[in-house]
Amino acid sequence: MSLVPKFLSYGKKVIDLSADYRFKNTFVYESFYGVKHADKDNLKSAVYGLPELYRHKIRSAKLIANPGCYPTAAILALAPLVACGLIDYDSVVIDAKSGVTGAGRRVTEAFLFSEVYEDFKAYKVNVHQHAPEIDQVLSKLAIKKIKVTFVPHLLPLNRGILETIYVRKAAGKPARPVDLNQLYRKFYKNEPFVRIKNEGAFPRLKDVSGTNFCDIGIKDFGDKIIVISAIDNLLKGASGQAVQNMNIMYKFPETMGLL
Amino acid sequence: MSLVPKFLSYGKKVIDLSADYRFKNTFVYESFYGVKHADKDNLKSAVYGLPELYRHKIRSAKLIANPGCYPTAAILALAPLVACGLIDYDSVVIDAKSGVTGAGRRVTEAFLFSEVYEDFKAYKVNVHQHAPEIDQVLSKLAIKKIKVTFVPHLLPLNRGILETIYVRKAAGKPARPVDLNQLYRKFYKNEPFVRIKNEGAFPRLKDVSGTNFCDIGIKDFGDKIIVISAIDNLLKGASGQAVQNMNIMYKFPETMGLL
Amino acid sequence: MSLVPKFLSYGKKVIDLSADYRFKNTFVYESFYGVKHADKDNLKSAVYGLPELYRHKIRSAKLIANPGCYPTAAILALAPLVACGLIDYDSVVIDAKSGVTGAGRRVTEAFLFSEVYEDFKAYKVNVHQHAPEIDQVLSKLAIKKIKVTFVPHLLPLNRGILETIYVRKAAGKPARPVDLNQLYRKFYKNEPFVRIKNEGAFPRLKDVSGTNFCDIGIKDFGDKIIVISAIDNLLKGASGQAVQNMNIMYKFPETMGLL
Amino acid sequence: MSLVPKFLSYGKKVIDLSADYRFKNTFVYESFYGVKHADKDNLKSAVYGLPELYRHKIRSAKLIANPGCYPTAAILALAPLVACGLIDYDSVVIDAKSGVTGAGRRVTEAFLFSEVYEDFKAYKVNVHQHAPEIDQVLSKLAIKKIKVTFVPHLLPLNRGILETIYVRKAAGKPARPVDLNQLYRKFYKNEPFVRIKNEGAFPRLKDVSGTNFCDIGIKDFGDKIIVISAIDNLLKGASGQAVQNMNIMYKFPETMGLL
Repeated sequence: MSLVPKFLSYGKKVIDLSADYRFKNTFVYESFYGVKHADKDNLKSAVYGLPELYRHKIRSAKLIANPGCYPTAAILALAPLVACGLIDYDSVVIDAKSGVTGAGRRVTEAFLFSEVYEDFKAYKVNVHQHAPEIDQVLSKLAIKKIKVTFVPHLLPLNRGILETIYVRKAAGKPARPVDLNQLYRKFYKNEPFVRIKNEGAFPRLKDVSGTNFCDIGIKDFGDKIIVISAIDNLLKGASGQAVQNMNIMYKFPETMGLL
Repeated sequence: MSLVPKFLSYGKKVIDLSADYRFKNTFVYESFYGVKHADKDNLKSAVYGLPELYRHKIRSAKLIANPGCYPTAAILALAPLVACGLIDYDSVVIDAKSGVTGAGRRVTEAFLFSEVYEDFKAYKVNVHQHAPEIDQVLSKLAIKKIKVTFVPHLLPLNRGILETIYVRKAAGKPARPVDLNQLYRKFYKNEPFVRIKNEGAFPRLKDVSGTNFCDIGIKDFGDKIIVISAIDNLLKGASGQAVQNMNIMYKFPETMGLL
Repeated sequence: MSLVPKFLSYGKKVIDLSADYRFKNTFVYESFYGVKHADKDNLKSAVYGLPELYRHKIRSAKLIANPGCYPTAAILALAPLVACGLIDYDSVVIDAKSGVTGAGRRVTEAFLFSEVYEDFKAYKVNVHQHAPEIDQVLSKLAIKKIKVTFVPHLLPLNRGILETIYVRKAAGKPARPVDLNQLYRKFYKNEPFVRIKNEGAFPRLKDVSGTNFCDIGIKDFGDKIIVISAIDNLLKGASGQAVQNMNIMYKFPETMGLL
Repeated sequence: MSLVPKFLSYGKKVIDLSADYRFKNTFVYESFYGVKHADKDNLKSAVYGLPELYRHKIRSAKLIANPGCYPTAAILALAPLVACGLIDYDSVVIDAKSGVTGAGRRVTEAFLFSEVYEDFKAYKVNVHQHAPEIDQVLSKLAIKKIKVTFVPHLLPLNRGILETIYVRKAAGKPARPVDLNQLYRKFYKNEPFVRIKNEGAFPRLKDVSGTNFCDIGIKDFGDKIIVISAIDNLLKGASGQAVQNMNIMYKFPETMGLL
């Protein structure tokens, strides 16, 4: 946000990979990121760069807040259920697992090979800064306050995020049973980078690593639903999504450079 | 179960690492393991070999059903909450992650190095045979039917299980707030192999790998609780626990050979 | 070799990834591969598909014997020295390390994740079938019999071969000292897939993994030379090189699909 | 060396894991380690703590220079050949591979997980500070100057060193052929921590990881010999060997705490 105003003033479009323009509520941003927001003017017009939800706005945006890696996988996994009002909003549990590149290239003891190899652990248990980002987008979609339970874990591998998401169905059964697999396929039917797994099949990191895809599998049982989504945190979770946004902003073919 | 009756008839004590004597309900056993139970006689007197819950019975048992790896970590994590009736029994979500040795030494494509390395995925999503084992033990403890949601995942490493468990607190607040960390410490205060992490700290595989310990961390927030437990699936989750049971059965010091 | 004669008889060009057409001497082939050669006719006209040495012949070839992965890295590392007669041919030591995909997809205990992870070992110590392939090509280049010492090792990773090669300089100093780095650069100056590292720098697998490049570093000291080469065994060491050969055979741009 | 004189003056025995007392020639030490030697007095009486060669001196030593990890594996692999004068001293090539714990716990970019995982590379090609340590010990054993060729590599795993060593036999055949496997077994017959592999078998890291053993395999062919040795760099290559030395110095059973 120290550079963005200048770029915009020169008439440049900006796709920002940081979190600076992701939160409409600067209080949330400031408390989770520990810095004062310095560009509230441009914040208002910033568009959250998740093409599957906001393609229309992205087209004409001057400033894109490129989504966080965990939020991308979580929101794509939950959007169809939330948009259709199918779930109990107080029940959302997101158990997320990420490879180490999700942490950037910081040189700290925690990311030494000998610390990570052969290990696995949770971190920032329910206090990760990506939780309120997920909350904001889903709440807007639900037109109701959603607060997810979110626990990220560190995988001993380089690339990829897999999230296993547990929800309870909304009380009061729908008039007729919903085929969730069909619902997801319909919801994402024109999306080049979302792939819905067949009934009974679920994503694995190998299938999305090195790609801009988000793979999603759904299990529907009793009054509960499990959704599993996977992305490459460096592509659909970061720079790949930025390229997708750029393609949309400049009317390039959306998949250019990404397939 | 093809050998156990013979061993017992010779007056030998048996600690069985298979699942054959874990289920009191043979229908559940038969439907999850796909074989007919062939020794219902001995099943009655078999003791579930989780020392932290059944030490007294183990002392005089002739036949021990050594617990499964996932159930050991899940039950130890949940027992204090269930025993005290603190949680909504319909809300239990167990997100489990295991190293590949949990699958035994079967030579199949799925466990080739090139399949597992750099990958991560869920498997047997909510249909794993360890779920009913967890259900049985927790239900007995709760004196009420519990059915957990259970999703195991395959970690690209050799040893260790980490489970992240999400529950909702029982409706109707207790008269005064419960300090969960203290509750766990009290519950396990004489247990040589259960270690409760300090408030805000959580287990990691490195700390339990190569040991018979089960490490447990608890997070209490709003109306929800997260419990994370970790064990070495080959020790506390299998042969280490078998040795612990043997020590108890033969009045050896319980930690002999394990510390 | 059971299919190749048929393909050729239909006027098709063949690039064979097996070892069947690599050895002009069928006795060597038969003793190392344990099968009788069944197509000696076509063997005569088969061209060894290493573009850096045989591009001219590849252009008009009908049948290409695509080189083995270890030989590709070894021959490219040694060709400039051998072609210039700079080394003692009895002194060549090739210490090779390969990721597990070099072994194909055979489902055997030796390639299970739990066998390979955290391990490292030599195998087929000086009896690997790729040694005589290296001998044949280098001997032809030297116009003198060369027999290398060759020890392959199994790395706990998926892709890549790195070979550390030790040679003694030929007795009798050249009239003036040779700048080996310059010699290599000149030798490979028109090669799109060979990259010579700067003086003092050496290849690493990360730099070639997922590419068709062969990176080479050279260290010259006293009467000895060390050459280190690295390739991706699945690309320059197998199918990438096959595509390169196809491009040459069909007059396509040589790097098409590979850069 | 800043603390050792003080400890010794208090009558304490010292086992030093650093390189400060390994080199009798301080010029070599100073040029490879880049520091001035500050305790030449005690250097004279320091004993190189490799029990298999210097047990007698270790018994009465006050100051032990605990050997480096690479030198331990290299010297144990070569000592029988050197002591018996069987090899051409100018021909020794040591291709060494080590897990990352060999580098200590320094927090540098080079040892980040994302740098090491899926990678393999040589480093300090023939300029590593352990080469002169090997030279010194072998030269003393040969009573002749030996200068080895030494290239270390970084393995993407935590623990273990494997060295593949190539030598040429001494010119002038011995009167009758030597059975090298027998020679090694005889040479190390009373050694509790050296294990000679059977003919045709070779060490692997898994077999020595977590132990104080050095495993050695030998291949004898034509005028050349290959010796492969493996140790755990943190045990036989560091603190395990220190404990072994302590046991010897204090007349404890030599294997106490190590088997």
